Amino acid sequence: MKYINGGVTAAKGFTASGIHCGIRKNQSKKDLAMIKSEVKAATAAVYTQNKVYGAPITVTRNNISDGFAQAVIVNSGNANTCNSDGIEKAELMCKIAAAALNVDKKDVIVASTGVIGMSLDVTPIANSAEKLASQMSADGGNDAAKAIMTTDTVSKECAVEIQLSGKTVTLGACCKGSGMIHPNMATMLCFMTTDCSISSELLQKALSDTVKDTFNMISVDGDTSTNDMVCIMANGCAANDTITCENEDYFLFKEALKDVSVKLSRLIAGDGEGAQRLLECKVSGAPDEITAKKIAKSIICSSLVKTAMFGADANWGRILCAIGYTEGDFAVDTIDVYLSSCKGEVKVCEKGYGIDFSEEKAKEILLESEIALTVEMNQGDFVATAWGCDLTYDYVKINGDYRT
Amino acid sequence: MKYINGGVTAAKGFTASGIHCGIRKNQSKKDLAMIKSEVKAATAAVYTQNKVYGAPITVTRNNISDGFAQAVIVNSGNANTCNSDGIEKAELMCKIAAAALNVDKKDVIVASTGVIGMSLDVTPIANSAEKLASQMSADGGNDAAKAIMTTDTVSKECAVEIQLSGKTVTLGACCKGSGMIHPNMATMLCFMTTDCSISSELLQKALSDTVKDTFNMISVDGDTSTNDMVCIMANGCAANDTITCENEDYFLFKEALKDVSVKLSRLIAGDGEGAQRLLECKVSGAPDEITAKKIAKSIICSSLVKTAMFGADANWGRILCAIGYTEGDFAVDTIDVYLSSCKGEVKVCEKGYGIDFSEEKAKEILLESEIALTVEMNQGDFVATAWGCDLTYDYVKINGDYRT
Repeated sequence: MKYINGGVTAAKGFTASGIHCGIRKNQSKKDLAMIKSEVKAATAAVYTQNKVYGAPITVTRNNISDGFAQAVIVNSGNANTCNSDGIEKAELMCKIAAAALNVDKKDVIVASTGVIGMSLDVTPIANSAEKLASQMSADGGNDAAKAIMTTDTVSKECAVEIQLSGKTVTLGACCKGSGMIHPNMATMLCFMTTDCSISSELLQKALSDTVKDTFNMISVDGDTSTNDMVCIMANGCAANDTITCENEDYFLFKEALKDVSVKLSRLIAGDGEGAQRLLECKVSGAPDEITAKKIAKSIICSSLVKTAMFGADANWGRILCAIGYTEGDFAVDTIDVYLSSCKGEVKVCEKGYGIDFSEEKAKEILLESEIALTVEMNQGDFVATAWGCDLTYDYVKINGDYRT
Repeated sequence: MKYINGGVTAAKGFTASGIHCGIRKNQSKKDLAMIKSEVKAATAAVYTQNKVYGAPITVTRNNISDGFAQAVIVNSGNANTCNSDGIEKAELMCKIAAAALNVDKKDVIVASTGVIGMSLDVTPIANSAEKLASQMSADGGNDAAKAIMTTDTVSKECAVEIQLSGKTVTLGACCKGSGMIHPNMATMLCFMTTDCSISSELLQKALSDTVKDTFNMISVDGDTSTNDMVCIMANGCAANDTITCENEDYFLFKEALKDVSVKLSRLIAGDGEGAQRLLECKVSGAPDEITAKKIAKSIICSSLVKTAMFGADANWGRILCAIGYTEGDFAVDTIDVYLSSCKGEVKVCEKGYGIDFSEEKAKEILLESEIALTVEMNQGDFVATAWGCDLTYDYVKINGDYRT
């Protein structure tokens, strides 16, 4: 497997673009993107589990229920959620994209992200669709990645190449964070494209399996969004032997999918609203997988751990506290805790009790931008990793007045 | 029932005091308190459900297992948790208090609050116990309330009087917040005293029932502390007919207990670390009690709701989002949401969708220091109330560098 440049248009047969159409007031911020496959593509998706979900989720779920799609239309600046005319507007977006891109409206994935509960004005989308369609190209992936950003500070893209049955298969993606991030069986917006030839069923299986260990293990603020969606289109343009069972190619493809998903998960967590540091929490030696995951997420979600990390303060008692309030049947008197970064590692807790460590060394470690919190439970063989970020003044600032 | 001045020494037969003994560096901050009943008192307690819990919890649980206690010793500045010598130190504190107050060491409740994982130096406690004991008085309740404060900005006390079998019965209490507050079947530190004559069994029942609807419905930061404890001593000095069954007196007493607990819960939430506003979330029309409670807590715990309230921003979509990710079987398309304060009320959401409202009026309402978020589910008769606070720059500041 090889990382390559590019994102959602890295794979053969995909084009994309993004523009400012006018949903956002700020003209320098793109707010509308489209992605197109030159042929119909096997398609899979995972959605938010929030009972309050955006109208685009309903429409997309319906459109790809046959396992196929050919295009994506997505806007930022308005989530089209909790609006009585939401479904109508989401369907209209599909119709606009279909006409502009010359595809069937039932083959369009629609997504929206931004403020909840404000009626979406589709006029700027309708007025700009033709122009956007005319700009679609294999170089347009980054424009699309930019157009889906909300409070993200950087666009998020990733692409890899693998070899399957003698063919080069490419998988690329773009996604956005960066607040209301606590995915539950789904995630923020992520669009993946591949030229792999694979059945819709196996594509869905690979995606669902991967999301559990990657996007679902991120938390920025504990709030599960109403508009979370990860979808993948596989158009078969690589001409590899079509994957229709869980053979070696399937696992190679799934491994690539997981790598891309981990990379994007880290990008989202590290660019969490206001974040200064990416936190990676690795739990090992757990008695079972669910406990490992729950503990990793408890730590990553703790406001007190997050603020301590902001202050580069080795206040490991808060990590123990977060472990302790995690549901599940496990002991705390066998647990060791380590803090590390590129500057080294310190052990701060052994068998549930504090031990002497150099505060100076700990401070040096914690001042880095990527911090690992490692919990060795010594109670079994299960592991889990979760990603999060510190809680900063800027998180409060960004969210204290998001709508203005 | 009548609210009266005072706190933990309001009831007959209780004395208390608080001093600076030297656990904290700041000499102007009291850090050690003792409370004493002149006779042995029926005693009940509820503790944190965190699997990592302080040594004082273990020792107190053991000491009051017979249903009786006579004194409390409590320090702030160090939680005596996650230390290999914790039990030994907590027992030593009981011994010191017992000697100074002339009670049995097995009748002492011990509690600690502060940093986790630093060995507790008992020397300053031992050196100051006699002096503290000599200052104990019926006017010392506020000194005790001050000595248990950590990042609390105000001391928290409350007392009420009720009439039982022709006698005046008094119930008083003090408690402390204000971070690591997300009680789970227990709460932060709260010491209650009453001169009511009541059996230990019914005292425990009344306390356990009350905690569920009061202290367990607060959240400041979603972190359940390792040292949570609410305890109550009932010394019988009011000479009312002893309550030994669930008669009318029992329910009058329980009502008083609930009123005191609600008042203290509001004080804790309103003085949450860095808080500018008390948030009270009232859910009504729920299909069952558990759903009502879970939804109220989801909203109160949402970082995005909390930051919106900090910004006095009527971003009600975040309330809907928090409702939506609450576990349970309920509909979202019948839900109405209101925002209110002493400045009035606005309806912001009807049947799950946004409705027009005056942003100007909403801003005026949300700039107050006590805000009510009211959710009418229209799905049944169950109600719940939860208390929390906004998330501010100061929360981040306080917790970014707590240990220094």
